[in-house]
Amino acid sequence: MDTRTTYIDLLKELGKLNSAVALLTWDEETHMPKKGLDLRAETVGKLSRMAFELSISDELGRCIEDLEGRDDLTERESASLRVVGKEYRRSKAVPPALFEEFTIAQSKSQAAWGEAKRTSDFALFQPHLEKMVDYTRRFADLYGYDDSPYDALLGRYEPGMTTARLREIIRPLRERLVPFIDRLLGEKTPSDASVLDGRFPIDPQRTLARTVLEQIGYDFDAGALDDTMHPFTTQIAPGDVRVTNRYLESNPLSGLFGALHEGGHALYGQGADAELYTLGLSDGASYGFHESQSRLIENQVGRSRPFWTFFRPIFTDALPSLAGISVDDLYRAANRVSRSLIRVEADEVTYNLHIMLRFELETKLLDGSVRVADLPGLWNDAMDSYVGIRPTNDAEGVMQDVHWSTGLIGYFPSYMLGNLYAAQISCTLREAIPSLDEQIADGDFGPLLEWLRDKIHRFGAIYEPGELIVRITGKDLSSEPFLDYVTAKYSEIYRL
Amino acid sequence: MDTRTTYIDLLKELGKLNSAVALLTWDEETHMPKKGLDLRAETVGKLSRMAFELSISDELGRCIEDLEGRDDLTERESASLRVVGKEYRRSKAVPPALFEEFTIAQSKSQAAWGEAKRTSDFALFQPHLEKMVDYTRRFADLYGYDDSPYDALLGRYEPGMTTARLREIIRPLRERLVPFIDRLLGEKTPSDASVLDGRFPIDPQRTLARTVLEQIGYDFDAGALDDTMHPFTTQIAPGDVRVTNRYLESNPLSGLFGALHEGGHALYGQGADAELYTLGLSDGASYGFHESQSRLIENQVGRSRPFWTFFRPIFTDALPSLAGISVDDLYRAANRVSRSLIRVEADEVTYNLHIMLRFELETKLLDGSVRVADLPGLWNDAMDSYVGIRPTNDAEGVMQDVHWSTGLIGYFPSYMLGNLYAAQISCTLREAIPSLDEQIADGDFGPLLEWLRDKIHRFGAIYEPGELIVRITGKDLSSEPFLDYVTAKYSEIYRL
Repeated sequence: MDTRTTYIDLLKELGKLNSAVALLTWDEETHMPKKGLDLRAETVGKLSRMAFELSISDELGRCIEDLEGRDDLTERESASLRVVGKEYRRSKAVPPALFEEFTIAQSKSQAAWGEAKRTSDFALFQPHLEKMVDYTRRFADLYGYDDSPYDALLGRYEPGMTTARLREIIRPLRERLVPFIDRLLGEKTPSDASVLDGRFPIDPQRTLARTVLEQIGYDFDAGALDDTMHPFTTQIAPGDVRVTNRYLESNPLSGLFGALHEGGHALYGQGADAELYTLGLSDGASYGFHESQSRLIENQVGRSRPFWTFFRPIFTDALPSLAGISVDDLYRAANRVSRSLIRVEADEVTYNLHIMLRFELETKLLDGSVRVADLPGLWNDAMDSYVGIRPTNDAEGVMQDVHWSTGLIGYFPSYMLGNLYAAQISCTLREAIPSLDEQIADGDFGPLLEWLRDKIHRFGAIYEPGELIVRITGKDLSSEPFLDYVTAKYSEIYRL
Repeated sequence: MDTRTTYIDLLKELGKLNSAVALLTWDEETHMPKKGLDLRAETVGKLSRMAFELSISDELGRCIEDLEGRDDLTERESASLRVVGKEYRRSKAVPPALFEEFTIAQSKSQAAWGEAKRTSDFALFQPHLEKMVDYTRRFADLYGYDDSPYDALLGRYEPGMTTARLREIIRPLRERLVPFIDRLLGEKTPSDASVLDGRFPIDPQRTLARTVLEQIGYDFDAGALDDTMHPFTTQIAPGDVRVTNRYLESNPLSGLFGALHEGGHALYGQGADAELYTLGLSDGASYGFHESQSRLIENQVGRSRPFWTFFRPIFTDALPSLAGISVDDLYRAANRVSRSLIRVEADEVTYNLHIMLRFELETKLLDGSVRVADLPGLWNDAMDSYVGIRPTNDAEGVMQDVHWSTGLIGYFPSYMLGNLYAAQISCTLREAIPSLDEQIADGDFGPLLEWLRDKIHRFGAIYEPGELIVRITGKDLSSEPFLDYVTAKYSEIYRL
């Protein structure tokens, strides 16, 4: 069999294992009864290990080396080799014994984090976090980097991005957002969310989520919507990209924006064809780019005034206690800015500052200029100076996110990059479709989806994000479009 | 590592693969969007093949041979070796090339059956069915048998049962049922089901199914209830035994008895502990025994008058258009006998005759005394003489069931055996719990489940069905208890 065929066959086998793991994991978070967990954990472990072993197999390695030398590859095949080869070399770089040691320490660390967060006792977590940072630094050395160890981690989630470049891109954020938030929230009366006070039954909220997904063009013949605790989107197969969501009785916007956010991810996934899936290219250009698609649908679309012009009657039909509410009330309630402690609840304006704080601490942990023991204090100081609010305990401070407890360092910037990509893409989109606002106000999301499909979704990971953003917008990534967007939008809302 | 540990470890690995396949298959029939099918079929194929290869691996074979010689095995270990060893030898008996040839012919045959049934054109299906019969006969020869090739097939589903013995057990059924049906349906006014005429929304029917499952003791922390086209129960893990069900707007009893039937299977599955699962013993004593648990809950419990005394208010609360209906109306509607063509819609009295017909044709196909070409006519004649109704086309005659199209011959008797076991077990149960009727009328199913757990469920496949029925009832299986049960019950209902 020729190498190219062997390579594709190996990727197909990998695709089947990954598909099974994705389904088992989805089920665990949606339908699995609690007594099924014991065997499930072992089953997922077995199939994940098989997938991992295949991904670092010598046979795959030989295919990659052999094919990389060829000049008769299609664009998709080259891209596949780039993506699969990079992951192969990363995985091979870590000795199996070290990786196993890490995974054991990782479970202990995650358990310790859970307990430490519950009791708000950072001392319990500290030794575990020190180990996680230490492992991460060793991994970075094994992966290799030019300038900074953080580059080796960041590059996995945002290929081609460096620490230095990221710092440069985001510098204006802090400079402009901190004083802007002061102006927004300083003397002005805060935007009022109390128009949405009440208890809202879950069933109609679930129906609203389904409706809004159908509206934006999510294909239910290639997906499903299920309840979960922590919403996520998962690609189980090229024609099977599922959304999970959560609803709060106290806040009907939570489930709605959750659905829009996950729906944005899902549209990206549904836009990839079966061949991209096989070639390992269907996860999008980067984590940051994936996040751009969820944020664009959630924020640039869902938190826009035209969206609420369209959606108000549907929303109030489903939730009759809100019958009297105006488009403007809803628009303002959906765009309330506040100095809040928890990242996942943060608004569009403050969100990136939450990420910046994490990025700065992560890079310093990696280069050794900050010690784990000093994190709580540094965290609280940074929250104070960036967002203007100080945590009163470490559970709502440095221990709020699960990421670090599992050694996941270098991932947080993806959230910020998503916001920046989304704003920059949105500018081009609005030039390309001048009547977008009118279309959205009419509930016509077809041209929007068509444009996203044409410019972004259908390419999967064929292009690295740095190249893709130029292809779409004609420019390198910058934070200016985002800053212009929030400044204009929130100045208007807050009548600055 | 010692052989016993290796054996258990291999079975654990097999259990994980089987669990993944069970979940993938369950999802395919419940939640999977249709565009996910292509990869799903391949993923299930891959994991099933891996499980099959493990189940016929030389390593497992060596363990079985080595352990079979030992005298220090526990009762469970011996049973495991009996069950796993038998399946191992069956699978090894068929050369891989022949089996692959068969699976290809099998998909073609099933597709041809679908088309032939749709157009009611037996000639389309005939050459495929001939091949399936031929393969099945070759498999029977390879598996080996003492008296009749049918024994080799039957024994897989009902270990220890032979064709001759089965013929003897069921002889009285035909002798007594055919004249009894004539008496029931002869001059008498048929029982009236029109009290349930109407359209009944699906949502409350689904809630009723959930309620009745909770009532009989189905543990939702170790299972789930989902919609499907063709109801089934599946054991995904020892603590994860899921029920699927279907509801008809035109008939609220269909979904209710479906839930009770599947619930009976599920109680059996939930009664097996994790060790039985690992040892390959959690699927019950036989297919017939499994069916006895579903039929006992569906018929001896669910189609009893005490059940409707208890359930009438719950039923009519959920379906207010039935508010005026009496317990007696419901009891009679649930126990309507009719001469009908389709097995899956048959009542308790005629059901076994549908099976007897299939059993007789299957044995004759296997021993060569009947040719496939003659099946349609023989089928119609037998329906006429047993059930007293003649199909007008082959779609509602010989082609109504999928089984034969996949080469599944020897399985049908399990349905009949289920009814016979259920009636015989029910006699003993009623002696053991004299107040069972009062308990059921009060909605107290606890003592019933406790008894089934104690006498049947907790043993899984430790005992062969022939031994288990004696342990439970003190007697070998016979059709007398079933005949006495239907004669008494339906004589009363039909006021003979």
